[in-house]
Amino acid sequence: MNEIDSADMGPWLSPEDLEFVRGKVPMVYVDIVPVRLDEFGKLEAIGMLLCVTGDTILRSFPSGRVLFHEGLREALARHIEKDLGPMALPQIPAATVPFAVGEYFPTPGAGYLDSRQHAVALSYIVPMQGDCNPGSDSLEFTWFTPGDARTRELQAELGEGHAALLRQALAQMGEL
Amino acid sequence: MNEIDSADMGPWLSPEDLEFVRGKVPMVYVDIVPVRLDEFGKLEAIGMLLCVTGDTILRSFPSGRVLFHEGLREALARHIEKDLGPMALPQIPAATVPFAVGEYFPTPGAGYLDSRQHAVALSYIVPMQGDCNPGSDSLEFTWFTPGDARTRELQAELGEGHAALLRQALAQMGEL
Amino acid sequence: MNEIDSADMGPWLSPEDLEFVRGKVPMVYVDIVPVRLDEFGKLEAIGMLLCVTGDTILRSFPSGRVLFHEGLREALARHIEKDLGPMALPQIPAATVPFAVGEYFPTPGAGYLDSRQHAVALSYIVPMQGDCNPGSDSLEFTWFTPGDARTRELQAELGEGHAALLRQALAQMGEL
Amino acid sequence: MNEIDSADMGPWLSPEDLEFVRGKVPMVYVDIVPVRLDEFGKLEAIGMLLCVTGDTILRSFPSGRVLFHEGLREALARHIEKDLGPMALPQIPAATVPFAVGEYFPTPGAGYLDSRQHAVALSYIVPMQGDCNPGSDSLEFTWFTPGDARTRELQAELGEGHAALLRQALAQMGEL
Repeated sequence: MNEIDSADMGPWLSPEDLEFVRGKVPMVYVDIVPVRLDEFGKLEAIGMLLCVTGDTILRSFPSGRVLFHEGLREALARHIEKDLGPMALPQIPAATVPFAVGEYFPTPGAGYLDSRQHAVALSYIVPMQGDCNPGSDSLEFTWFTPGDARTRELQAELGEGHAALLRQALAQMGEL
Repeated sequence: MNEIDSADMGPWLSPEDLEFVRGKVPMVYVDIVPVRLDEFGKLEAIGMLLCVTGDTILRSFPSGRVLFHEGLREALARHIEKDLGPMALPQIPAATVPFAVGEYFPTPGAGYLDSRQHAVALSYIVPMQGDCNPGSDSLEFTWFTPGDARTRELQAELGEGHAALLRQALAQMGEL
Repeated sequence: MNEIDSADMGPWLSPEDLEFVRGKVPMVYVDIVPVRLDEFGKLEAIGMLLCVTGDTILRSFPSGRVLFHEGLREALARHIEKDLGPMALPQIPAATVPFAVGEYFPTPGAGYLDSRQHAVALSYIVPMQGDCNPGSDSLEFTWFTPGDARTRELQAELGEGHAALLRQALAQMGEL
Repeated sequence: MNEIDSADMGPWLSPEDLEFVRGKVPMVYVDIVPVRLDEFGKLEAIGMLLCVTGDTILRSFPSGRVLFHEGLREALARHIEKDLGPMALPQIPAATVPFAVGEYFPTPGAGYLDSRQHAVALSYIVPMQGDCNPGSDSLEFTWFTPGDARTRELQAELGEGHAALLRQALAQMGEL
């Protein structure tokens, strides 16, 4: 049995409860596209993590679940701090309307694949004004120029859903 | 016991499972703002349901849960058909990016109140080209002019979250 | 001399006046991405014109100037009728907020090139529910599948600005 | 005659040319809604200028014309510096897609009234991270809480178009 009683976990779920819930309803996620902008708001760089999942190495954007009773803004701040460190100094957007929505399903077919769950990911472009340092879940965090981000080579290093997210972010910023 | 075994329910949840899940994670909802547009896309009317919940009568927009393994587009089509009938002829938007996002929490404080659950509602303006007839969950469906929709009197007939959604929709359409 | 006195032209400009104004201020344009959607709002096809300009043949989206004292909605309706015929049955969007903005400049450098002028193009995705027939300014109008629209071959048949617009539209509709 | 030869004015227009052009085509404007956000991106304050035009005192948002051959980002930076001073430290948005578009016409009827011209105003919410000091065109610059900004009293101190812009900005930020 779990040493932490689930009643004490607040919005966190025990592995069993998470497994159960993931088989019942779509999970709410936030996806974050970290960017560096110049003084005119023009894109200078777009940041990605390098993560190991099982035996694959993939680039990805900071991303994570919205907890029970957690606001979208708090979820954004929490995942940015977890994945990019406490000195990232994010400028979380004034509006919580996402610029893109990703749909992930546990079986192939419609949408992107996430073998763990059905997830609806609300995606945000977030300017970072400080230093980004990857958390323990990833190997490194790298800034790429818009030119690099447009290449098929770099996009091939992302999973299918985040590669699409990258293209959507570039399109939104007029850089695709 | 439930006559329908939960294993047979597909994406639907038994009342017990729904109750359990609602206490663990935020639910994904879609909110629909039905509109009639003229040939130039200009707002002619905005539609609302009149519903009885317990002993209160409230106006509201068609709204509902996204099921496990259900796409956002399918959820929109399903809830529109359920709440506005099979002849509504909705023009579901080309993009699944919502124009607004509502956050509902089971305890007062941040966001809007929904005593049943924490919900994240993706909101869409949907032009209707056919006849809207309310389903069994509501007393009537009524079209209002933009002028009526702007009044505090009408907005007071909606719950707090949907009154805000109405103002957001009017603002988005340049009618507030 | 022009047979039509410029005082009688209403919002239209004589060639001399248009030439003069084009050297003084940015022109307001609307760009239209015609789409066919299925009943769930999912993209079935995206439409483009084939036009001859000088000795080059290019695909392009319906596009044109907003006249003095003309609203954006009226400009959209007018250019759609001119370029796609009176039976196109467009569903002009409920909101005049564009999904993308293109900037064109008369000299190479920033933005896209338009040797005639500096233009700011407000871009809209417009579902067409009727039959599109090209006007006299173009050779043909063709519907392409999302798969075709994603190819570099087709994108190479558009000018630089409209190729970017195509990618932005595909990204917005979750199809890139 | 003007001492500055118009050929030397670059993108600026002589009063005569501006007058002429304003009677021929719509002018491109940018409207800026200055905001202060907390670390979660939540609105803390919204800023407005107090300006004298003729014998009326009105609040308004920083706003101005996009010059010939000037990019939208450069126009935003220029008008922010002119109206809010060089220490405003604006965070110009990553995307040039406006969150709202205002249409102004020289005669009453459709859209908002601007007796000088037909203008299409692309509107942006811009977080300010420094100190805003009004330029010589305005009497003062004031930050208002979201609560104050929602009042009809404050909205009545703005012209019709900017009052609508304020409501659109509040709606966009989930604060209306």
